[in-house]
Amino acid sequence: MTGQTPTPPFCAAIDWGTTNLRVWLLDATGAVLGERASGEGMRACMPDRFETVMESHLAALGAASDLPVIVAGMAGARGGWREAPYLTAPVGLGALHAGAVAVPHATRDVRILPGVCQRLPGREDVMRGEETQLAGAVAGGLGDGLVCLPGTHSKWAVVEAGRLVAFTTFMTGELFAVIGGHSILKDTLGEGAVDPAGPAFRGGVEDMLAEGAALTGRLFSLRAASLLGAAPDPRARLSGLLIGAEIAAARAAHGTASEVGLVAAGLQADLYATALRLAGFRASLLDGGTLVRRGLHDAARALWR
Amino acid sequence: MTGQTPTPPFCAAIDWGTTNLRVWLLDATGAVLGERASGEGMRACMPDRFETVMESHLAALGAASDLPVIVAGMAGARGGWREAPYLTAPVGLGALHAGAVAVPHATRDVRILPGVCQRLPGREDVMRGEETQLAGAVAGGLGDGLVCLPGTHSKWAVVEAGRLVAFTTFMTGELFAVIGGHSILKDTLGEGAVDPAGPAFRGGVEDMLAEGAALTGRLFSLRAASLLGAAPDPRARLSGLLIGAEIAAARAAHGTASEVGLVAAGLQADLYATALRLAGFRASLLDGGTLVRRGLHDAARALWR
Repeated sequence: MTGQTPTPPFCAAIDWGTTNLRVWLLDATGAVLGERASGEGMRACMPDRFETVMESHLAALGAASDLPVIVAGMAGARGGWREAPYLTAPVGLGALHAGAVAVPHATRDVRILPGVCQRLPGREDVMRGEETQLAGAVAGGLGDGLVCLPGTHSKWAVVEAGRLVAFTTFMTGELFAVIGGHSILKDTLGEGAVDPAGPAFRGGVEDMLAEGAALTGRLFSLRAASLLGAAPDPRARLSGLLIGAEIAAARAAHGTASEVGLVAAGLQADLYATALRLAGFRASLLDGGTLVRRGLHDAARALWR
Repeated sequence: MTGQTPTPPFCAAIDWGTTNLRVWLLDATGAVLGERASGEGMRACMPDRFETVMESHLAALGAASDLPVIVAGMAGARGGWREAPYLTAPVGLGALHAGAVAVPHATRDVRILPGVCQRLPGREDVMRGEETQLAGAVAGGLGDGLVCLPGTHSKWAVVEAGRLVAFTTFMTGELFAVIGGHSILKDTLGEGAVDPAGPAFRGGVEDMLAEGAALTGRLFSLRAASLLGAAPDPRARLSGLLIGAEIAAARAAHGTASEVGLVAAGLQADLYATALRLAGFRASLLDGGTLVRRGLHDAARALWR
């Protein structure tokens, strides 16, 4: 009972990742009328539960049966709901909707936005979902510069004049997991959260930022230090080495002139912000959910207004 | 029936690794009177089968019950047969025998040579077995320079004036295994031997030798290239990236002025020799078995002559 007139839903927007799902009910201005989140990501929905899962969330949000739906992310991968072929970078981030693919035989209008690929030999790369976050960032006023999207597969994107010019995926998060879970370092690392302010994380970052350091030559020292009784917080140091290697490479490729948009939250944001600062970058924090919602809404407006 | 008078055994020498075991019967000059190899490495002998395994091989070689035995490698690790505490680098390679530890309660004189550790903060490192190969190389005339010992944990050693000055362990082989076995690249890599002469291996090495390249930013491209239908031989490229990262770091640290002694055989020797050549190093091949045997014999002569 706020006295405001409720606005009608314009579309539903879904960020459908590998392991998670977010659904928003949006009005024509992009304002959020309702929201759902679940662990029913692409993996949980393969091969044929996509529509059932989507309809259950839309019903819970009270969406009309003819409300159109715009989707970004892994639902558009080969083997997902319906493949939305990659656009090839460089690509205008304002035109993702032009590559959207309609899901055939759905009971309502469902469009899946394409991912983006890069075809440089030896630097081939792909993204699905991050391009929509980047579109949202550009729509929100992001100028030329770098955007860092940390995660299992951390991505660094170069954005110029509203275009995604180039990008690189670092396997930072996945390497942390497989090295910690399956290598000789398994018993060395211990448990617990990494402290961004501690000397172990910071030292790992700084070693990777130094000239001539190589990641693969520093990993075993975690084990050796433990054998020698000289290993304070090897888990934090491994995190620092991996994030430091990523940022050192980005710095070598791009310098530190431009501000970096950092799409992260919580501890991950703290770790990357600390490491970026050590490398001489200025970072500004961006919220990934807000970005993808805005990117989805802009695409929906382009498709259906 | 060669007409030569057989020489008496002087000692038995054992290279006792994590997964393998080699035993030699040597005369006073170091000549080989008999030899055995098996998969009864440290892991297969823990916690208490070391003596049984050793005696079975010595019996098979017809060794007298009072023949002394000199051991190098993981049998001297904590949790092995008997811990032989690390010497600390820099260390004279001609004096490893001074750190040898006698196995108590053995039915014969058994001495285990120490490993070597490095206590530089952030560059802590350890070796067990390689120090004896290096001692053998120095005894065989190796001058000042670099020695590369590829493997699961590839080691680069700086040798000056008969001393092991510093060393770095690269987790090259283990990263190849855990990335290939447990990461998103598992399904991408395929099977088969890596071709050292092929463009995929060579391209991986060259990318890592180039300025500003970062390993963790190139791994995901193997998967992306496969998704994009542009991935000739990703297995060879991964091998090239990992070996290239190792050699790029060594070159950054040491330059390419000195010749590199390469302790390897077979395909591994081909891969490293190819990559070293691409980096501008001159490499000379050394046989690891010969080196460790010589190092063990020299230590035995110092202990028992």
